[in-house]
Amino acid sequence: MLEQLKQQVYEANMELPRRGLVTYTWGNVSGIDRASGLVVIKPSGVEYDVLKPSDLVVVDLAGNCVEGDYRPSSDTATHLELYKAFEEIGGVVHTHSTYATVWAQACRAIPCYGTTHADYFYGEIPCARNLTPEEIEEAYEKNTGTVIIESFREKKPLEVPAVLCKNHGPFTWGKDAAQAVYHAVVLEEVAKMAWMTEQLNPSAVPAPQCIQDKHYLRKHGPNAYYGQK
Amino acid sequence: MLEQLKQQVYEANMELPRRGLVTYTWGNVSGIDRASGLVVIKPSGVEYDVLKPSDLVVVDLAGNCVEGDYRPSSDTATHLELYKAFEEIGGVVHTHSTYATVWAQACRAIPCYGTTHADYFYGEIPCARNLTPEEIEEAYEKNTGTVIIESFREKKPLEVPAVLCKNHGPFTWGKDAAQAVYHAVVLEEVAKMAWMTEQLNPSAVPAPQCIQDKHYLRKHGPNAYYGQK
Amino acid sequence: MLEQLKQQVYEANMELPRRGLVTYTWGNVSGIDRASGLVVIKPSGVEYDVLKPSDLVVVDLAGNCVEGDYRPSSDTATHLELYKAFEEIGGVVHTHSTYATVWAQACRAIPCYGTTHADYFYGEIPCARNLTPEEIEEAYEKNTGTVIIESFREKKPLEVPAVLCKNHGPFTWGKDAAQAVYHAVVLEEVAKMAWMTEQLNPSAVPAPQCIQDKHYLRKHGPNAYYGQK
Amino acid sequence: MLEQLKQQVYEANMELPRRGLVTYTWGNVSGIDRASGLVVIKPSGVEYDVLKPSDLVVVDLAGNCVEGDYRPSSDTATHLELYKAFEEIGGVVHTHSTYATVWAQACRAIPCYGTTHADYFYGEIPCARNLTPEEIEEAYEKNTGTVIIESFREKKPLEVPAVLCKNHGPFTWGKDAAQAVYHAVVLEEVAKMAWMTEQLNPSAVPAPQCIQDKHYLRKHGPNAYYGQK
Repeated sequence: MLEQLKQQVYEANMELPRRGLVTYTWGNVSGIDRASGLVVIKPSGVEYDVLKPSDLVVVDLAGNCVEGDYRPSSDTATHLELYKAFEEIGGVVHTHSTYATVWAQACRAIPCYGTTHADYFYGEIPCARNLTPEEIEEAYEKNTGTVIIESFREKKPLEVPAVLCKNHGPFTWGKDAAQAVYHAVVLEEVAKMAWMTEQLNPSAVPAPQCIQDKHYLRKHGPNAYYGQK
Repeated sequence: MLEQLKQQVYEANMELPRRGLVTYTWGNVSGIDRASGLVVIKPSGVEYDVLKPSDLVVVDLAGNCVEGDYRPSSDTATHLELYKAFEEIGGVVHTHSTYATVWAQACRAIPCYGTTHADYFYGEIPCARNLTPEEIEEAYEKNTGTVIIESFREKKPLEVPAVLCKNHGPFTWGKDAAQAVYHAVVLEEVAKMAWMTEQLNPSAVPAPQCIQDKHYLRKHGPNAYYGQK
Repeated sequence: MLEQLKQQVYEANMELPRRGLVTYTWGNVSGIDRASGLVVIKPSGVEYDVLKPSDLVVVDLAGNCVEGDYRPSSDTATHLELYKAFEEIGGVVHTHSTYATVWAQACRAIPCYGTTHADYFYGEIPCARNLTPEEIEEAYEKNTGTVIIESFREKKPLEVPAVLCKNHGPFTWGKDAAQAVYHAVVLEEVAKMAWMTEQLNPSAVPAPQCIQDKHYLRKHGPNAYYGQK
Repeated sequence: MLEQLKQQVYEANMELPRRGLVTYTWGNVSGIDRASGLVVIKPSGVEYDVLKPSDLVVVDLAGNCVEGDYRPSSDTATHLELYKAFEEIGGVVHTHSTYATVWAQACRAIPCYGTTHADYFYGEIPCARNLTPEEIEEAYEKNTGTVIIESFREKKPLEVPAVLCKNHGPFTWGKDAAQAVYHAVVLEEVAKMAWMTEQLNPSAVPAPQCIQDKHYLRKHGPNAYYGQK
């Protein structure tokens, strides 16, 4: 079932340790087959160096386990909320990558200080609010998705394909699992440079809007001219 | 004698340079066989790239050398104090890993700024007081253990399996030598992110208690649901 | 056509990921054949691990594509402006290397804090001004070259072979593509140490001029005595 | 001539890039044969990846080239001053290693914040004063040695086997070339942790003297008990 998607999601998962984004098992990638509404996701707590494509778990959008020998990632309910709310996305990633997590722990959105950020994220990367004790008690992982979605009421998910969860860490997404991982790598680099920028210049301000527009739009949308299309 | 434990302690020691936690010989791991009360520990000052399982030293809880061609780690007396006071632990690690040592040199406990910390350490990681000149003179390594134990009068050692020794560096522990090393790796990552968090937001506050409870308890205790048990 | 130059520019491009200066495709190197006025440059958006010498694109100084199956780097017009204005240079590099980009995002020139800087850059490394909305609209990449050149009205390009573009990142150059990459590596190290110097001593001042002169001139000019010539 | 010393000095030189202490050719190691008064040193500007033992240069203490096809390191005169003034040393290292250079650029001695420092350096690591314009003009490299020696009027060179040259970088030494490199590695780690300590706690104070004494003396002198002697 969904062998091709499993292979893609497996490869996307394995890219996380290769890119230095996870320690031990602190991360997971999923991908969705929109035709069937089925999601392939990493099993919970399985080490990356023994993970095989066949270890991945298939769940439906209601969270029922459809296939797999393992329990799915403990963050599965968060992934599912994102797939339900953001119909244009095909892959989701969660990590505790160092600099992105630091911004989350500092309870700060990441300002757009330069073109590296603007090439991929159109505007600041938001920091979702903490869950209330009631939301934690009721359904922690599902409500983590809810507060992320709250942060995107006035943003398009594929224009800012990342969020920070306060005191926790980042989620990123993309049109598929591979692009979601790509965005996780870019987020970490952008978070690192923004952190260093504020250390160097505590009164740093975001890049001028015209620069942000130029860089985002030379890579995205109908008039893009970066790359080989 | 204790061949299986020696192999485990050897592998735990070799994990330290592999994880980037030691420079030269600045670290040591031990493990205890509770049935016999014997402790296996790294020999003092032996380089990791020539260390063999048979080089490990066996000592009893009184510090007598029971087997081995080498002198045991100069920190042996500290390990022994911890084994005597913390009956639930099976392995102990000492390193000078960079960020944990920096918190020790800054004479600061590490606040719990996020879920990466809360997943493994239930509350702040304490910084034990300096030894007095008399305690240093009398028995430096033994009394290093004594002041660590003082810091845990109101904490359970396996709920906060790490401590910082002021102006020195960290000790960690676990149910066995491998888990003690795992905690040393997590401590270093948590210490790094907490350091960066305070640089980014000098008025950062610890994560809400309900988040700390949720994360610690979804991995530990009777209602844990992380992983594959 | 220009096979030897293509090989040199190819090798210079491949040195960027090897030295840790680029993530994904965030960098490009070009080299010029002054006799023919032709420039060899990396194609836009092609991953380094599949790049071949024959993928490189040949353009003339007016920006016309003379040879190649791909579109040239989206930054080509900037490279061309530099070749036209700085007649003594033979290679140009653009990266988003971390620390150099951080200085650009902080809108700061890099002061000369020591001999590592003075050995290669004679005086501070300038930060070019932002483009106006009109300059962006008219010809973003070409005008990026224009504002760089503005910053060198009173500097010799080979005495300070690097510049920061505000809110963007660095360009470096040299007598050929290999030396331009060498300067990109040195710039990143110098930017890192200057950043750390200001963190340690917020009132740090540049190295005395006599030290800057001594170090620059023992490596450069008629009385140089470093190395084996 | 001096084949064994050449091999030792060659291996010590090659340890610098392996330990991440040099970029390109920014470092050099020498060793002395006290019987003959001859010094073996790296040639100037030769890349580490092509360096062979036979490329090393032999000079006498007056700076005359006794053997070798290359010119000796441009820093040779500094090494020679150190050998003449510090009779107990057998090897000297110069690098631009990142954190040690940062302290030199910040014009700061490195305080002893913990036991990692105290295990190898007995007290703070001094920062030698800048040379005057006259001293630079007269004999830059020789006088670099002179101001280093000035800083050790009240210190024993083997008790604090390192110095920072203001706005430049570190020199270290030891009983032979290998130990001088060992001290260069330790200096870099100590410099990194001290930098981070001050960032975390701007009012950090040095470790209590009794801790510094205990750690230095358990590794050095007649009552040392670390290691296997």
